[in-house]
Formats: sequence, C-alpha cells, structure tokens
Amino acid sequence: MKKIVILTLFPNVFKEYFNTSIIKNAIDKKIVEINVVNFREFSKDKHKKVDDTPYGGGAGMVLTLQPIVDAINCYKRAESKVILLTPSGRQYHQKIAKDFSLSNHLIIICGHYEGFDERINNYIDYSISIGDYVLSGGELAAMVLTDSIVRLYDGSISKESLLTESFENNLLDYPVYTKPYEYDKHFVPSVLLSGNHKKIDKFRKEQQLLKTKTNRFDLYLKYKKNIGD
Amino acid sequence: MKKIVILTLFPNVFKEYFNTSIIKNAIDKKIVEINVVNFREFSKDKHKKVDDTPYGGGAGMVLTLQPIVDAINCYKRAESKVILLTPSGRQYHQKIAKDFSLSNHLIIICGHYEGFDERINNYIDYSISIGDYVLSGGELAAMVLTDSIVRLYDGSISKESLLTESFENNLLDYPVYTKPYEYDKHFVPSVLLSGNHKKIDKFRKEQQLLKTKTNRFDLYLKYKKNIGD
Repeated sequence: MKKIVILTLFPNVFKEYFNTSIIKNAIDKKIVEINVVNFREFSKDKHKKVDDTPYGGGAGMVLTLQPIVDAINCYKRAESKVILLTPSGRQYHQKIAKDFSLSNHLIIICGHYEGFDERINNYIDYSISIGDYVLSGGELAAMVLTDSIVRLYDGSISKESLLTESFENNLLDYPVYTKPYEYDKHFVPSVLLSGNHKKIDKFRKEQQLLKTKTNRFDLYLKYKKNIGD
Repeated sequence: MKKIVILTLFPNVFKEYFNTSIIKNAIDKKIVEINVVNFREFSKDKHKKVDDTPYGGGAGMVLTLQPIVDAINCYKRAESKVILLTPSGRQYHQKIAKDFSLSNHLIIICGHYEGFDERINNYIDYSISIGDYVLSGGELAAMVLTDSIVRLYDGSISKESLLTESFENNLLDYPVYTKPYEYDKHFVPSVLLSGNHKKIDKFRKEQQLLKTKTNRFDLYLKYKKNIGD
C-alpha cells in the first residue's frame, strides 16, 4: 500500500475532499493510506507557536524550522520523498506526478503566512509549485498533488481512461462531443457519426494538434521537437 | 460586494475550505458572496443525468450542454465573466488572477469525467487551466482560482503583504529567515542582523534574482526582457 503524509496547520480542510472523489475510492480499496498531520503538535514552544518575525524586518510571519523538521523526522523512512510546497519551487507537471506516483512514501509539507525559513531546504528532497499564482497556503497545492498522484496509482481508475489524457506527448486532449447532435444551432462534426473509425481517429488527431497549436503554442513546440519535426 | 458563482457536481467539497482561511474572513466581512451551485439541479433529464457517451466512441462520459448552459443563463448578468476550468485552457497565472479580481461577478464552471462537450466554448468567456497536470475534476482548480482572487480583493489581507509577493515583475519572493539564528548548524545570513536597511534591501534583491535565476530561469528571462536588459 502507498502512503502519503501531509504536514499542515489546517488538517480540517482536507477532510471533505479526501472523502469524495477518486481519493476516497483509493483509500477504501486500500491502494493508499493518507495521514494528515498538524505540525503544530510538534512545536516545543509552550504556546505551540509555529512562526516568528522575519530577521531583517518585513511583513508577515515566517514558519519556524523546529516543528516542521521534527514532524518530518517523525514520519520519514529511508524510502520517503519529502516535498515542500512553495511558489518558489519547480513547476509541477504531469511527468512529475508520474514520478511521484512510483514512490511508496511521500511526505508533503504545506506552508502558510509569509512562508518557510529558507533553511528548510536542508531537510527536503523536492521544492514544488503548482503554478505561477499566489495562494493563501499550501493546502490546495497538497490536494492538487494528492489528487493527481493517487489517480495514477494502479487500480485507482481504469487504464483506458489514462491512455488518452491531456499532456501525454505534450498534447492537449482531443475535443469530445455528446448528445444531442444539434444544440442551439451548434452541431457535432459529422465525421464522428460516420462509424468509420479510421476517419474518426484521423479527425481527432488533427483536432488535437490544432487545439494544442491554438491554445498552447508552447506545448505544441515541445511536441514538434520531440517527434523530431 | 463581489460575487462568485461556482457551478459543480460536488458542492460539498468546497464547504470546509471556504469555511477556513482568507475566504471565510472575506465572506464574514461582506467583501464577497460565494454561491456554490450543483448544476445537476438544472438537468431536464428525468433521472437528472448530466453526462452521456462520446460521439465517435472512446473511454469515459462527456458532460452534456443543457444543464451547464441553463445554469450559466440562470446566474449570468451583463457584467459576468464566465470561466471554464479545463486542462486545455490558457495557463492561469497571477496577472490573470489580478484581472479577475477586478470583476464584480464571476461564474466558474468545474468539469468532471472525460470533460465538456466542445460546444461549451460558445457559452463561456475564458477557458483556464491551473497547470499541466490531470486532476479528477475542476473542483480543486475552482478553489485555487477563488483563493487567489479573493485574497486580492480590497480589504481581504493587508496591502503590505501584497507588495512583496512572488511573481511580481516575474520574480520569486526573496528568501526569509526567522529565529533561532542557528538551527542544527545552519545559520541566518549575518547581514539580516546588521540593522542596516540599505544593505538588507540590497542583499534581498540579490538573493531574489539569484533564486529566480536558479529555480526558474524561464521567469528570470522574462524579468530581464521587461527591464530592457
């Protein structure tokens, strides 16, 4: 069984999300065990304080090392990967999700307030950002990582669903259509009703390339480079 | 007062997050009203179905247009911005968050299963992705948008905190340090204890540039381009 430990100051916010969706299913099937831990419990301060003012002045409070480092040490095993969530980290993407999904033991650390004491980097393996935007804490980022990783574990969802996903080969997913054939004067492309699977595959591949080129030229260039074009 | 309407099949997962953090505070202060709506309620199907098989075959179920379009029409005002969350969308970043935070009325749509019928694009203003990874649904993305936008509303958090944030001018935040001065043989840079604010500012700026160059060379290049270097 895979194991994920999440270190956070707000364990409650995870409950409802981990109780719905693919994650609940994976927990019920004993594919993964998720342990959400409040690292405040590890504070040796008599008031259980976990932050302090920044050296050199400036706005906000900085998370102190002691509670987080002690929490890491408490849960860490030889095989653990320790992941820090911070806007300064490496940009998360599907390839990293796949890499993390191969690990049996992940420790994910959520920050809050002005951030971590920079010296935290001595105690972690990866520093990850889910995108170039500012959030009030690392909790949503931890949910994003957990969701994207757990769905890749063997048995979480059907293998067929994983085959034609976005970001495979740097391409967006091809467009899909469902009933009704006509909605408010907007029609489904007729080739999809042809029953000719060769034609349908060709159409989808063309649309997939067009969509990637239009919406995400950066990904399209990576795709072209990889196929040696 | 700002208003955000979230259309989702899983309204419960938002409760706990919106009841903690900066969002709860902004709701209590009447800075924003957030309405989480289950678009299944708008389905005209007798079993309240919201999805169907894809035309042309393939794995998974596709969200039908009728329930979502009717839900949009029910809540839409002249000033609304309608945002669809999908991995095929434009990459979300802090500048878009700022743009959205100026709007008084946002409608955010969360997908699930294999995704939306492509014709949904006729009914939306923006198609947004929070990053190049696959999630089981749009709910986490909607929480990410809401959190990043609400914290930018006037009165949500202190203006001072917003001044020195990550991604301003394409730079990461400068590193911060707090007590103790020595932790496990790791020391705080001594300049931060000097009391010389000119030196401290210079050090922080240097560190900020170094960190951005090391961790995110792509952002560093954008920064250099913008300052005309």
